Amino acid sequence: MEKLKKYISVKDEDHFYHQGAVELLIFNFLLILTILTIWFFKNHRFRFLHETGGAMLYGLVMGLIIRYVTKSPDVESGTVYECEKLKSGPSTLFVNITNQVYEYQYKREISHHNVNGHQGNAMLQKQMTFDPSIFFNILLPPIIFHAGYSLKKRHFFRNLGSILAYAFLGTAISCIVIGLIMYGFVKAMVHIGQLKEWEFHFTDCLFFGSLISATDPVTVLAIFHELNVDTDLYTLLFGESVLNDAVAIVLTHSISIYSPKENPNAFDAAAFFQSVGNFLGIFAGSFAMGSSYAVVTALLTKFTKLCEFPMLETGLFFLLSWSAFLSAEAAGLTGIVAVLFCGVTQAHYTYNNLSPDSKVRTKQLFEFMNFLAENVIFCYMGLALFTFQNHIFNPLFIFGALVAVFVARASNIYPLSFLLNLGRKQKIPRNFQHMMMFSGLRGAIAFALAIRDTNSQPKQMMFTTALLIVFFTVWVFGGGTTPMLTWLQIRVDVDPDEDLKAKAASQSTSNLDKNTTKAESAWLFRIWYGFDHKYLKPLLTHSGPPLTSTLPEWCNPVARLLTSPSAYGDQLKDDDTVYIINNDELTENCESSAHIPVPTQDSTGSIQATGKEDIQEGDLGLGGYKLQLQHTAGQPQKNSLA
Amino acid sequence: MEKLKKYISVKDEDHFYHQGAVELLIFNFLLILTILTIWFFKNHRFRFLHETGGAMLYGLVMGLIIRYVTKSPDVESGTVYECEKLKSGPSTLFVNITNQVYEYQYKREISHHNVNGHQGNAMLQKQMTFDPSIFFNILLPPIIFHAGYSLKKRHFFRNLGSILAYAFLGTAISCIVIGLIMYGFVKAMVHIGQLKEWEFHFTDCLFFGSLISATDPVTVLAIFHELNVDTDLYTLLFGESVLNDAVAIVLTHSISIYSPKENPNAFDAAAFFQSVGNFLGIFAGSFAMGSSYAVVTALLTKFTKLCEFPMLETGLFFLLSWSAFLSAEAAGLTGIVAVLFCGVTQAHYTYNNLSPDSKVRTKQLFEFMNFLAENVIFCYMGLALFTFQNHIFNPLFIFGALVAVFVARASNIYPLSFLLNLGRKQKIPRNFQHMMMFSGLRGAIAFALAIRDTNSQPKQMMFTTALLIVFFTVWVFGGGTTPMLTWLQIRVDVDPDEDLKAKAASQSTSNLDKNTTKAESAWLFRIWYGFDHKYLKPLLTHSGPPLTSTLPEWCNPVARLLTSPSAYGDQLKDDDTVYIINNDELTENCESSAHIPVPTQDSTGSIQATGKEDIQEGDLGLGGYKLQLQHTAGQPQKNSLA
Repeated sequence: MEKLKKYISVKDEDHFYHQGAVELLIFNFLLILTILTIWFFKNHRFRFLHETGGAMLYGLVMGLIIRYVTKSPDVESGTVYECEKLKSGPSTLFVNITNQVYEYQYKREISHHNVNGHQGNAMLQKQMTFDPSIFFNILLPPIIFHAGYSLKKRHFFRNLGSILAYAFLGTAISCIVIGLIMYGFVKAMVHIGQLKEWEFHFTDCLFFGSLISATDPVTVLAIFHELNVDTDLYTLLFGESVLNDAVAIVLTHSISIYSPKENPNAFDAAAFFQSVGNFLGIFAGSFAMGSSYAVVTALLTKFTKLCEFPMLETGLFFLLSWSAFLSAEAAGLTGIVAVLFCGVTQAHYTYNNLSPDSKVRTKQLFEFMNFLAENVIFCYMGLALFTFQNHIFNPLFIFGALVAVFVARASNIYPLSFLLNLGRKQKIPRNFQHMMMFSGLRGAIAFALAIRDTNSQPKQMMFTTALLIVFFTVWVFGGGTTPMLTWLQIRVDVDPDEDLKAKAASQSTSNLDKNTTKAESAWLFRIWYGFDHKYLKPLLTHSGPPLTSTLPEWCNPVARLLTSPSAYGDQLKDDDTVYIINNDELTENCESSAHIPVPTQDSTGSIQATGKEDIQEGDLGLGGYKLQLQHTAGQPQKNSLA
Repeated sequence: MEKLKKYISVKDEDHFYHQGAVELLIFNFLLILTILTIWFFKNHRFRFLHETGGAMLYGLVMGLIIRYVTKSPDVESGTVYECEKLKSGPSTLFVNITNQVYEYQYKREISHHNVNGHQGNAMLQKQMTFDPSIFFNILLPPIIFHAGYSLKKRHFFRNLGSILAYAFLGTAISCIVIGLIMYGFVKAMVHIGQLKEWEFHFTDCLFFGSLISATDPVTVLAIFHELNVDTDLYTLLFGESVLNDAVAIVLTHSISIYSPKENPNAFDAAAFFQSVGNFLGIFAGSFAMGSSYAVVTALLTKFTKLCEFPMLETGLFFLLSWSAFLSAEAAGLTGIVAVLFCGVTQAHYTYNNLSPDSKVRTKQLFEFMNFLAENVIFCYMGLALFTFQNHIFNPLFIFGALVAVFVARASNIYPLSFLLNLGRKQKIPRNFQHMMMFSGLRGAIAFALAIRDTNSQPKQMMFTTALLIVFFTVWVFGGGTTPMLTWLQIRVDVDPDEDLKAKAASQSTSNLDKNTTKAESAWLFRIWYGFDHKYLKPLLTHSGPPLTSTLPEWCNPVARLLTSPSAYGDQLKDDDTVYIINNDELTENCESSAHIPVPTQDSTGSIQATGKEDIQEGDLGLGGYKLQLQHTAGQPQKNSLA
């Protein structure tokens, strides 16, 4: 009898492994199909359906097959066992079945109405809906890190004011507008009897508003990149959607822990300010956590000469960046925000310390991980429509959400653009505004925020609705991007070289731009730039003026210890740089200095080396996010040396 | 009340995410420490402790901390609930607790004696011992694939006969010897009352013998590579340990499904032959599965011109290779064997079709994944000693296993070397044999096979013993590699260029070698090579003679369709190649042809292009597995053109 039992347990074990393999194989198969489709589309210049839309479509079909074609092998599924001894669900359950103790792990709380009535192979469906923590800990970090790592600092800072306005104010507006509209719809649904009063509070509506306010950078920007769309529009949208993800995540978290004392529908000032405080605290904490890890990486790569072993260097870079995410999560902060700013800081400092081999390796590695993670997420979203077991489709709620999303996007983009245009000399034109309105796709983050909590019925309804909004926006708006660009007469196929000449010709206009950007990137950034250039860059990288010259004299012993020997050669360049700071736009300096023909006195390899690094830094953005740098990079040259 | 409940569920959810983050963070921290240690050791040329030993050590210390320093927060752990309604443990359990249904997932069967008496944070300990399926589906494939992808075909085929003998016969000998010795020890333990008769059958002993027979290529070969040890010794050990892993895995599987009808200790001829049949079937099936995926990849990369998009190409390559593993697992075959041969075939065909960018990307990607996976596994092994909850330490069993492992290694290496030396003209010298005996470390595969099944007490005892043997061999033998090489007077710091000159000088001896290798790589491989060169290479890659010239005339329409346009330019080279085949060692041709100064008639770019590819192919091995190619590659040139 003992024999028999062992035998069964081996068989079970084997079955378990095969199940895991089948699950992963289905994803692999979907990804392979997606890659071949992308290739086919690129080869034939089809643009009506983007790769992300394709991935979702394949996921959808596969979900349909799993649900309606596979057979149901497990008869026991759906049986609910009573347990009288427990008061709440423990994380681990030891169950004694026929004198053998089995260990069970907590998976989720499920509604009664979902226990029965599965179709198809419920086991496989359950396996395919993988743990939402995989989204947050494995799939999202590479995407967000890549966005930060490939951020074009120069263009970003040029439009920083506008980007921050859209990301912070815009997301808040969007969240509140959606929350209000949804609350109206919910009231109406209660009125006609589709919902019970106590199921949906105003905070739930705000929660939904915040999660669905996260716009997705993937689809539209990939198309923009391919078509070489106007750089300013690209930067505005890229900056907005990347920062807006971070804002939406923290906002969702703050709202989920907002707990008014009495009536949940009434306004509780204390709780509200606590939420605002939470929001600011979490955002600042995550920012600090992310940057600290990048600073540690920069110091390690600067002082250890790890660059002799590119693989170790790449490994360290990868692990420390991921640790930024994990530490933030472990500390109760927001990992996504941490990893975003970690990426930005890594690109700004650590990247310059890496060996040439590691520069290429890290870029390609993160690009590859980003590509895979993106496609897995979009495939998974397609799959989830049919394999996720706790969907609640409510047509009225879905319709309301669609309306709310568009009204909110409009009340975010148009009023803010109007206000920003009051301050900007280089206005955001009407057609740009329409395009930004049109580009508010929802994607991975909205989905991930929604799937994070599907324990209660309102949350399940929100999840289903969010999923459908993602489908709708990716397919309709993603597919419509190219026609829309034509219709709005937005410049595409901007040839960098041609553009450079055009800009040089209209130098007087360009001068006006300069003033604008100078005004935009205000005194705060001027101070920050000075600090960064004088202290941080020399401390964290091999370039910049030596600390011995920037720190007060009594710090000299420490300064000498911390300054890289190669930094001393840069002193010439430093003077030159100061000149540029005073005469040109601050934040452009770091990239444009490489292009300036420095009057070489006794300058040796070190200047050229730094110059080269800067160029490479400019080229950092890869794949979906590559920008036409040259034409804008050429602009300040003429001015600063004229 | 509804409010309160929702609030609690959000908190729980958060706790869960943080737990996952903490767990991953601990691994990241260990890996970062390991990387810094590796760098420190490399920088100071310490060789007494290899990186894998270091990783294990850090894991061990972290396990100690988790076990004895952290506090136990979960009071409910250890309580066993009775369930009368169930007959066996279902994969998913729905439990009704205070009117709320919770879903629990099956984790494992545990022994009664392990339920209570945990120390430290049992929750964290449980989380740290991750699912063994992660080993098999995520961590092992990149390591094994990398081994196959970086296999030096030329050196491998030179010593193929010996490698196959060590891997197949040697592993079988090792398995049987260990099984017999362990059975003796088990009988003795039953005699003195340490074990109950029915707990351990002879098949269990054989099972242990097969799992512990898998030798590890990582530690020793990394040291060999660093020291530039004699190439023949390196190849023998590399080939043996890679193939031996595959053999041990299939052997373990065959033994685990070996089921004699009656008395499990009696010999059942039918069941035995069924097991042998299983072994051969699974091995052949896995081989076929792995190669088919590689062939599909080769065809896709050849005919789609995917090489214009290196990232898509790399993605496809990665996904199809992983799918080879998963498909084999899903089909009940052995994924590790499939992915090994997939790697070999990808390197042989697909690699030649890749764009230059993808060649570098795939190499670096797999190298990086291999590096990370290796270190995760070794850290994890260290952790497992203290965090795994079902250890059974039995000193007598452990002592017996250590004795058995050494006796088995000796009865594998020495007799086989003696037999092989009868056939080899270039003998395997005594000191090589001693070094091979010494290099039989146990590592990731033995551990992974042991952790795959820890449901019963005998299996838990085996797991604990296997883990300790890994520790012992990696620390003692891994650390002793460098002194041992010196003591055995094995050539290190072999400078490829110097060696080349030496070999050229002693051309007559070298001619003898040639005959030897010709005899070794027998007629079977000659036929295979001809088939590969005439049909497979032209079909699957852009090089080789056009199929129109090698296939019978009536196949011409199909042949023209399948032949790459660039293959026609190779016809000249083809004639040259045939000459080389007749005059030199078969398998050397593919790499050496690149070095031959072809008398160019109307040869255009295509020849040079192919030549370049071959050189790159020769350089494929990276990191731990890079070989000194040049000196041996130079050898045939002189002969073939003399």
